[in-house]
Amino acid sequence: MDSALRQLTASLPAGVVTSHRETLEKYRNDHIFDPAAGRPVAAARPQNIEQVQTCVRWAARHATPIVTRGAGTGLAGGARAVDGCLVLSTEKMKAVTIDSRSRVAHVEPGALNGEVKQAAAAAGLFYPPDPGSYRISSIGGNIATNAGGLCCVKYGVTSNYVLGLSVVLADGRLVRLGGPTVKNVAGLPLTQLFVGSEGVLGIIVGATLRLIVPPPDPSTVVATFPTVSAAGRAVVGSGSTSRPSMMELLDNRTINLVEDFRRAGLDRSAAAMLIAQFDNSAEAAAFETVARASEGIEVHRTDDPAEGEMFVEIRRATGPAVERLGPFLAEDIAVPIEALPDALRRIEDLAAELSLDIPVVAHAGDGNLHPAIMYRPADRSSTARAHSAFRRIAEIALSLDGTITGEHGIGRTKRPLLRQQLGDDVMNLTALIKNALDPGGLLNPGVAI
Amino acid sequence: MDSALRQLTASLPAGVVTSHRETLEKYRNDHIFDPAAGRPVAAARPQNIEQVQTCVRWAARHATPIVTRGAGTGLAGGARAVDGCLVLSTEKMKAVTIDSRSRVAHVEPGALNGEVKQAAAAAGLFYPPDPGSYRISSIGGNIATNAGGLCCVKYGVTSNYVLGLSVVLADGRLVRLGGPTVKNVAGLPLTQLFVGSEGVLGIIVGATLRLIVPPPDPSTVVATFPTVSAAGRAVVGSGSTSRPSMMELLDNRTINLVEDFRRAGLDRSAAAMLIAQFDNSAEAAAFETVARASEGIEVHRTDDPAEGEMFVEIRRATGPAVERLGPFLAEDIAVPIEALPDALRRIEDLAAELSLDIPVVAHAGDGNLHPAIMYRPADRSSTARAHSAFRRIAEIALSLDGTITGEHGIGRTKRPLLRQQLGDDVMNLTALIKNALDPGGLLNPGVAI
Ligand SMILES: Cc1cc2nc3c(=O)[nH]c(=O)nc-3n(C[C@H](O)[C@H](O)[C@H](O)COP(=O)(O)OP(=O)(O)OC[C@H]3O[C@@H](n4cnc5c(N)ncnc54)[C@H](O)[C@@H]3O)c2cc1C
Ligand SMILES: Cc1cc2nc3c(=O)[nH]c(=O)nc-3n(C[C@H](O)[C@H](O)[C@H](O)COP(=O)(O)OP(=O)(O)OC[C@H]3O[C@@H](n4cnc5c(N)ncnc54)[C@H](O)[C@@H]3O)c2cc1C
Repeated sequence: MDSALRQLTASLPAGVVTSHRETLEKYRNDHIFDPAAGRPVAAARPQNIEQVQTCVRWAARHATPIVTRGAGTGLAGGARAVDGCLVLSTEKMKAVTIDSRSRVAHVEPGALNGEVKQAAAAAGLFYPPDPGSYRISSIGGNIATNAGGLCCVKYGVTSNYVLGLSVVLADGRLVRLGGPTVKNVAGLPLTQLFVGSEGVLGIIVGATLRLIVPPPDPSTVVATFPTVSAAGRAVVGSGSTSRPSMMELLDNRTINLVEDFRRAGLDRSAAAMLIAQFDNSAEAAAFETVARASEGIEVHRTDDPAEGEMFVEIRRATGPAVERLGPFLAEDIAVPIEALPDALRRIEDLAAELSLDIPVVAHAGDGNLHPAIMYRPADRSSTARAHSAFRRIAEIALSLDGTITGEHGIGRTKRPLLRQQLGDDVMNLTALIKNALDPGGLLNPGVAI
Repeated sequence: MDSALRQLTASLPAGVVTSHRETLEKYRNDHIFDPAAGRPVAAARPQNIEQVQTCVRWAARHATPIVTRGAGTGLAGGARAVDGCLVLSTEKMKAVTIDSRSRVAHVEPGALNGEVKQAAAAAGLFYPPDPGSYRISSIGGNIATNAGGLCCVKYGVTSNYVLGLSVVLADGRLVRLGGPTVKNVAGLPLTQLFVGSEGVLGIIVGATLRLIVPPPDPSTVVATFPTVSAAGRAVVGSGSTSRPSMMELLDNRTINLVEDFRRAGLDRSAAAMLIAQFDNSAEAAAFETVARASEGIEVHRTDDPAEGEMFVEIRRATGPAVERLGPFLAEDIAVPIEALPDALRRIEDLAAELSLDIPVVAHAGDGNLHPAIMYRPADRSSTARAHSAFRRIAEIALSLDGTITGEHGIGRTKRPLLRQQLGDDVMNLTALIKNALDPGGLLNPGVAI
């Protein structure tokens, strides 16, 4: 251990910094495992803001890159280590306090989303953002990626609930942005500049989140379709008559994977299935009509929340059902709602053309698709075709006026594609802001920009 | 007319640029009239993006400040001219097109909020943000101030509906940020950096706005209270049982001003009145109970949308009812919901202490208060006391962990108070970003930072 690192270790309580080789292994990757991930010199697990500042000042002094890490559930390699970096993990900063009269939560970044939800629920309130990973991902990571989820089609994404942030900047200074008021336009909108900034502008060390009254028990509609396009048309049609609080799509391949995994009695022959929820049964009924008019094969509606939850659990099971097949490239494109049927059809064609297995799950109401491009790392051809599909699906999104990432972020896996979407002038604007805030380029180098 | 200005005039179609002295008068002030407002050298009314770029490049070449102007309804002096500036008015850029299948509107900045609402309604859709000024304020101004309104307590503020922006930067370059997808996290969250940036970072020349299905007909509750604190408590209580789509408060003085103006049969003796709306009658009934439990004197509930609209019109009449009394300083503080009763009481005390007339209207559900500090400009003492109240109301907000502006912006009138709220480090961060984007300091100098 070199002397600089000894200094850092000595300036913090025992156990905060580790350079133990095996321990460091678990800080090298996020959910997208890359055997070639860099090797950190150390990992720090600060317990409070001052300790974060100590780490950042140390890193600035020694020109050591910092990779901030929440729970490591990211799907874009954003928390992946680079050689010689300090991993700064928020895992020890987990406090959550609820102010039920002002309806806000004050949280430390390492608190899990599910822990915030639970604390809010205990006070009779609701924190809406619900990424599929809500039980395992941190609020800091959710904010840094502006995480979406199932209910954001009605209830909005993480940014809609962030009222205030405490951020440690690249030079170690702490800034407090926004605050506990619902509305606040004093000065530039800096709070929002950090929501979705993927750890490249500063380290989020605290947040004030807006809570709302829990929505009523949902009504649920489940419908199967003979083609993905028909399902896509039902989604497009639904949005002009009702406001679903969830509108998820599973394609035929995903239906079959879930059925293999769970035996839920799904129709293995359906080209696609929609699982939709609504805050009242009139809206659900309106969607039932839309689904039938869009060639819906079986259309089932229930006002029983427990039965509805069973269907939502089927949606949640798609993750493990796909993952047990083996490695895949996780896609996350989004297109304008109207283009949804087209995007689904083109991905289907691409899978056939490249002989790849590409199950698709979608937050369909938001036009946000998650194709999982399965491949065998040992097989060169399969790997090459998968990477080609990854690029071409991004290009499908761009050709439809969409985006290469709807909610997972650019991270490290999509950085090569970003310029194609944003163009030189926006990349340049991005660089101006990055350089203004982090002139040394030490915060999460290699991510997003 | 000097030669530089002749150049600009010649490089644009006839009528775009004017330096006619009387015409320029109307470009000097926004809704907060300041006789000492600066004198522009000219006003430009570009018809398209290229003409905006021509103006900005010209201004950059000649180091001429640019004050961007929407409809001039701002309440913070944000569009007020400075000496020697070019006023860039968006009044000629008004196109609105609706994509009803993707549920987005593509708008030019000069389109009025009400025109966007109308175009959306014609396609069966709804653009929620509804500042009191929606019939007369521009979308560009709404975006630049992140305007709120009546329904934002449930439906959110302008930023929640901005999916994409086209912005002309200080050097004349055009950047396109975001796009027509509901979700998009590709790169830094630059779209949101411009929402609420008050014209100091770039000129908004186009926007893609999210539209939703119209909400159901509202149920309305109107309630009067014996003290402002009791009304404030009803607001605090309401938020844990229901989600109002409107929760407006009028204090006793405002009730009387409206009654003088309109004769609506309001109770002149009530200390405060709440006008609340809900998306369904069960929630309205829940609030009725809360209002009665908070010492509500008369509590009236109606599911008749036409009767409800009458009450909303009473709320809208508060603007003209106050304005016809004469000049006032427009306040716009916001506090955490819990602090609402306290803030109301302290403003009441302050008015008594300074012998000032300070009617208060509030977007109470958001904790956003609009005290109007009446004064007589010819009377030195009255003017001095009004300015003292302006400062002290801001300090009340700060002492309650609130903000000096909830929705109107800092503009020119609140700039002297901003540092007190943000502190040196955040002011410094703001300057870093401003300098990165507008190193010459030509965009709206004197505003916000
Ligand atoms: C099964 C599963 C389902 C998922 N479903 C969804 C979904 O529905 N919607 C969705 O949006 N995502 C989803 N994800 C992706 C992932 O969970 C989210 O991106 C989540 O927000 C990451 O949080 P984390 O704490 O794991 O962050 P990490 O993976 O640790 O980090 C993510 C990024 O944020 C940065 N970061 C983390 N904490 C901070 C901080 N305190 N300050 C500054 N930067 C920080 C990191 O540097 C990195 O760039 C899913 C993942 C899995 C495994
Ligand atoms: C009766 C009345 C009621 C009101 N009620 C509300 C309310 O409920 N909620 C609320 O939030 N406000 C309210 N306002 C304030 C005002 O209407 C809003 O601030 C509105 O958003 C201003 O729009 P505008 O087009 O008039 O902008 P302007 O007054 O012309 O400009 C406002 C600011 O935006 C900048 N700007 C304007 N256009 C652009 C552009 N295209 N690009 C970059 N910068 C630009 C200007 O430089 C200035 O700093 C009210 C005003 C009145 C008179």
